[in-house]
Amino acid sequence: MGDEQLHGYRGKLKEALEAAGVGIGDLLRFESGDGSFEGSLMPRVETADDWHVVLKLKSGYNVGIAFGEGAKVVRLGQAEKPEFRPPPLPEVKAGLPKVSIVSTGGTIASRVDYITGGVHAAMSSRDLLSIVPELSDIAAVDADILYSTFSENIDAEQWTGIARRIAEKVKEGAQGVVITHGTDTLGYSSAALSFVLRNLPIPVIFVGSQRSSDRPSSDAATNLLGVVSTAAHAPFAEVVLGMHETTSDTSIVFHWGTKARKLHTSTRYAFQSVNTEPLARYVDGKVEMIAESYRKRGEGELELMDSFESKVALIKFHPGFQPSTIDWYVDDGYKGVILEGTGLGHVSTGLYEALRGAVKAGVVLGMAPQCVWGRIDMDVYSTGRELQEIGVEPLGDMLAETAFVKLRWALANSDDIEEAMELMRRNIAGEYSDRTLYTGRFG
Amino acid sequence: MGDEQLHGYRGKLKEALEAAGVGIGDLLRFESGDGSFEGSLMPRVETADDWHVVLKLKSGYNVGIAFGEGAKVVRLGQAEKPEFRPPPLPEVKAGLPKVSIVSTGGTIASRVDYITGGVHAAMSSRDLLSIVPELSDIAAVDADILYSTFSENIDAEQWTGIARRIAEKVKEGAQGVVITHGTDTLGYSSAALSFVLRNLPIPVIFVGSQRSSDRPSSDAATNLLGVVSTAAHAPFAEVVLGMHETTSDTSIVFHWGTKARKLHTSTRYAFQSVNTEPLARYVDGKVEMIAESYRKRGEGELELMDSFESKVALIKFHPGFQPSTIDWYVDDGYKGVILEGTGLGHVSTGLYEALRGAVKAGVVLGMAPQCVWGRIDMDVYSTGRELQEIGVEPLGDMLAETAFVKLRWALANSDDIEEAMELMRRNIAGEYSDRTLYTGRFG
Repeated sequence: MGDEQLHGYRGKLKEALEAAGVGIGDLLRFESGDGSFEGSLMPRVETADDWHVVLKLKSGYNVGIAFGEGAKVVRLGQAEKPEFRPPPLPEVKAGLPKVSIVSTGGTIASRVDYITGGVHAAMSSRDLLSIVPELSDIAAVDADILYSTFSENIDAEQWTGIARRIAEKVKEGAQGVVITHGTDTLGYSSAALSFVLRNLPIPVIFVGSQRSSDRPSSDAATNLLGVVSTAAHAPFAEVVLGMHETTSDTSIVFHWGTKARKLHTSTRYAFQSVNTEPLARYVDGKVEMIAESYRKRGEGELELMDSFESKVALIKFHPGFQPSTIDWYVDDGYKGVILEGTGLGHVSTGLYEALRGAVKAGVVLGMAPQCVWGRIDMDVYSTGRELQEIGVEPLGDMLAETAFVKLRWALANSDDIEEAMELMRRNIAGEYSDRTLYTGRFG
Repeated sequence: MGDEQLHGYRGKLKEALEAAGVGIGDLLRFESGDGSFEGSLMPRVETADDWHVVLKLKSGYNVGIAFGEGAKVVRLGQAEKPEFRPPPLPEVKAGLPKVSIVSTGGTIASRVDYITGGVHAAMSSRDLLSIVPELSDIAAVDADILYSTFSENIDAEQWTGIARRIAEKVKEGAQGVVITHGTDTLGYSSAALSFVLRNLPIPVIFVGSQRSSDRPSSDAATNLLGVVSTAAHAPFAEVVLGMHETTSDTSIVFHWGTKARKLHTSTRYAFQSVNTEPLARYVDGKVEMIAESYRKRGEGELELMDSFESKVALIKFHPGFQPSTIDWYVDDGYKGVILEGTGLGHVSTGLYEALRGAVKAGVVLGMAPQCVWGRIDMDVYSTGRELQEIGVEPLGDMLAETAFVKLRWALANSDDIEEAMELMRRNIAGEYSDRTLYTGRFG
């Protein structure tokens, strides 16, 4: 057996599989303290441990079984290799709303190759409709591959590219646009497009998935069905991010593009709205609005403000953070820095001098919370007041990631620092939550 | 009226107060659509808005009242200035367990000066017992001021200083040590001491508060009572962080020192355990253990491994992150970098070359999640596998902040990179959670 044929297996388990003469796709019986399972051996693709064997059972389910003391592997023969053969494309039904799907890559646009174990980051319109044929009952779907990349490689160039493709789709009469995108930087991109797309007439929905579409636990199909239906029928014309609301498949939740953060590395409901309620959810085949106030679908003329400054950094403060690091950013020509401060918006006093130098050099400095939740308040402690005197702008309850994206956008779409600061302070796409008014007990 | 006497007031509200001839400490009547309130004017110290007037009512409570259209201010005279006069120290009762409180500063060790509005970051043993006299019923308390600083200024020098003071207290027979500390970097410090204090015989409890001790909503007294009682009686000998479990005063929860993160800028239960359950809670005057496995109180001889490398950085990856930034850290002589990657532990391929250069220069690279929750898994996608080939070490479910502190510790307490990496991989103070074993459905 070649290594390639035991893709993903390591250590003692791999030795046992080799000893039994078993390769990927072979039928085998696995006996352990937990019982006996028959199935075909699958490649390992999504876990870090080396003590689970993955079998595809006759029922079609994949199971992972722990390989412990006393476990035995018996080769039974060669199983039918799993194959991916798309059914013929469904017919386009007349009279359905037109929804455009623009693929940029990521897990939702991927499938596992069972021979190499690799995850392919590409999916055509044909693939999509063959995996989720129900889409053709919901909308007249067209699907393009714009990019085919893992989202950790997406930057301003792609944000601009996505914006221009959306503008084309709007011009062609799309009643909603869905952007499939890797989840790693999905929140950064949804924030970016929230600022770029001015006077938006239709819903623009970013969607990803945490498990590839050929896994029984995949969220790709339910996420796609929910977002395409919502793109076709929802009353809002906002940039949102749609993903599983809980572990259950029954509800897809739509976060404001500027308020969503990936908060778990692997669960299907990894994205959560921070400091605000989501905009809407899709449940029982219907869109339920949660927010009371939002931009309505309309006939407006879409405008793009689609440039981004590249010399902007997001810097997380930590104990022992050296002022020379700030100096380097200034010397390297950075035009803006979002500081992720501690607590209500603090950094050590040892950085004051370097920050003064940055301000003097014309670098815009904004403060966002490393706490994730809550609001920056630089009026409480002397540190915050001193940082404001130096020129650090408190950015309320904006997510640090959104603040970073917004500063790149504000600097590229203004003539001077004052105008950029004015954009930073204005609530443009729901990035600031309403302040909670109270007249009762204080504190 | 001088500015100082209207400390914290701004805009229209300040103008109205000036027009009425009212200063801090004056008795006034405030009339608005919500009713009429009489009280003495308090300085503003803890809110970012400029439309609330803060009054101390006769009942002693402070209220914040919105200043809106049509509101009126009438000066009634001069109120008695609030004063802080400590009662005599309670007697030390015989036979109680000895608990040492070491103060490093922060809100828990502060009180507001009602004349200047400033928050004073210092509290003596006398202050402490006069604010929370019940402490003397729980334990024979001694309290030292070790530092008097906001925690954003605490770094390795203070971590070492705290460790040495704890060692003295242990030698003097303390049955528990409580460290009061600002909440901003409380999680970094509790992680640091978790690695420093080897063979610990007693509980060491970090505690902070989110509201200063003279505010009706302060968590300072309940937190102190809970942690002192726990330090005196708990069965564990671990470094923990004790704070409010919920908004309610009824329960103080003890997070593992390496697993706690400040996740809200201002709530009293801002700290949460990430990827694991807390160790214990204090409720109804008793310590309830949550964890099944922990280090027991004992007679061991405390050892300190109390040095930290200063040339270590925590770098949060973001879209558009430039490779030249990595190059600068290498050129500046950094010995270690924790990357806060996206998703399962990724950065853009554009950084590969710079990371290869860092590894070649002997810089230790570790990967932690910017998602906060979940586990790094660099075996799933090609990006993760490629980063591992370059030499980036996946750090499981360790918090990024803990990984950063641990790398500073590991590099200072080992002879070479291999030994440091071995320390990084070993579970030393609960920083890695146990893997979840399962034998059922896969995915």
